[in-house]
Amino acid sequence: MPSTSLVRQLMQFMTKERGFDTVMKGLRVVSAGNGNCVCELTVTEDEQNRGGSLHGGMTATLVDVVSTCALMTTERQVAGVSVDMNITYMKGAKVGSEIVIDAKTLRCGSTLAFLSVDITHKADGTFVAQGRHTKFIGSKSSK
Amino acid sequence: MPSTSLVRQLMQFMTKERGFDTVMKGLRVVSAGNGNCVCELTVTEDEQNRGGSLHGGMTATLVDVVSTCALMTTERQVAGVSVDMNITYMKGAKVGSEIVIDAKTLRCGSTLAFLSVDITHKADGTFVAQGRHTKFIGSKSSK
Amino acid sequence: MPSTSLVRQLMQFMTKERGFDTVMKGLRVVSAGNGNCVCELTVTEDEQNRGGSLHGGMTATLVDVVSTCALMTTERQVAGVSVDMNITYMKGAKVGSEIVIDAKTLRCGSTLAFLSVDITHKADGTFVAQGRHTKFIGSKSSK
Amino acid sequence: MPSTSLVRQLMQFMTKERGFDTVMKGLRVVSAGNGNCVCELTVTEDEQNRGGSLHGGMTATLVDVVSTCALMTTERQVAGVSVDMNITYMKGAKVGSEIVIDAKTLRCGSTLAFLSVDITHKADGTFVAQGRHTKFIGSKSSK
Repeated sequence: MPSTSLVRQLMQFMTKERGFDTVMKGLRVVSAGNGNCVCELTVTEDEQNRGGSLHGGMTATLVDVVSTCALMTTERQVAGVSVDMNITYMKGAKVGSEIVIDAKTLRCGSTLAFLSVDITHKADGTFVAQGRHTKFIGSKSSK
Repeated sequence: MPSTSLVRQLMQFMTKERGFDTVMKGLRVVSAGNGNCVCELTVTEDEQNRGGSLHGGMTATLVDVVSTCALMTTERQVAGVSVDMNITYMKGAKVGSEIVIDAKTLRCGSTLAFLSVDITHKADGTFVAQGRHTKFIGSKSSK
Repeated sequence: MPSTSLVRQLMQFMTKERGFDTVMKGLRVVSAGNGNCVCELTVTEDEQNRGGSLHGGMTATLVDVVSTCALMTTERQVAGVSVDMNITYMKGAKVGSEIVIDAKTLRCGSTLAFLSVDITHKADGTFVAQGRHTKFIGSKSSK
Repeated sequence: MPSTSLVRQLMQFMTKERGFDTVMKGLRVVSAGNGNCVCELTVTEDEQNRGGSLHGGMTATLVDVVSTCALMTTERQVAGVSVDMNITYMKGAKVGSEIVIDAKTLRCGSTLAFLSVDITHKADGTFVAQGRHTKFIGSKSSK
């Protein structure tokens, strides 16, 4: 699957450069293609909140970035611009735990794309969080 | 207003420590108290996305952190645990631009607290984003 | 303000016709114009849930319809098509209570419009719910 | 599966009574049990918006009601109270079309339950909408 190695290279490039994407440096791309992208992360102190668990802002950033990677593997091959994003936090993920971030493209229209992301504990499959992300992919620069 | 200096000290403490809150290092607390918190940020390369604007994950983290600071200035004085968060992205904020993050407590019940956050351009008051954040503040450890 | 009477007429027309908008028959348009719309509703048994309070689906419909009325009073004068909507439920509204639905246009771009809705108890101003609504207003028929 | 007939009876009871749940009168319960509930609806003029498609408020009400039915088939057997709900609208559903509403319990904690709902076209499985619903199921009367 060529998409997986492509997204993997992209992620390496993004997280070496300066910018907020460097917070994704621990993310491992497991598979990518056909509008889907699956990544894994071992939660470390760099992603923790004051309680020693995955920070809610980091969870939101995972929803944003992994769904964007999924979108880039559709026929449109665009990153788009965020319109709406929501996250439901169901269970904490302590430092040291392994989580799976599974993003799917629900629909890719001419102007808007719709993506869904499940974040689960690798150990037992229970939900850490679920998010949804709507992106503008129209040709115009302005929404 | 004693709350402002308290939240300011807390923010300094949080961003010096290891953890994801260090991404907030550029945040300036303007005022805090009575369930409200106003902060400012000059967008730098550290918070940018690939397009040179404020990263959507950083925007989400601002909604999370500044609303939590607002919640800590209510009578309950708790940080709580995130339940639901949503963000609507309306306009980009380029590197170098000044943004205002204005968080309000809409309601603080016995088990749940509800917060709203406006992120605007300081120059003209136009919206960058708006978010809402529901937090669990019950006494039980588990949601 | 001519917009108020226009939106009032529109609402009367909509709720007489067949269609789901007939659930809005009790809605009173207080004012409308410049991207804003304020309505009032006395909760009756027609809008109640099994617990004798305003039904969550009716609350969501109020967010949808009143924000759309607000959008129709902008320069664009369009109803648009829903993209994303969210509602945070803070407090019940019993049958007999009066509620205020206050919708504002946060931003009206070329393709997307962003609206926010506060639903409060008329008696004391406390929040029943808050919602946000993103609508597609582009010229193309398909999102 | 006894749960299916139980939820079917409940739905019949709810939609005969006075109250907003009567808008669900066309809903057919296909299966229910173990925290899941699948229903079908043929869109009629009663559920339509001004454009002759499923009304966004009705879509939101479907997310609300069918996810609540799913929750009632968990071990907790409670209806709960809405905390947060979001809906992403992906594609219209014209009058006459058949739609499937598929609700799942993502997690049922001691105080909060988290549900997800897919609404798809029966003909081709494409998404009409996707929603998420957080409900308070704690023993206290107040959130």
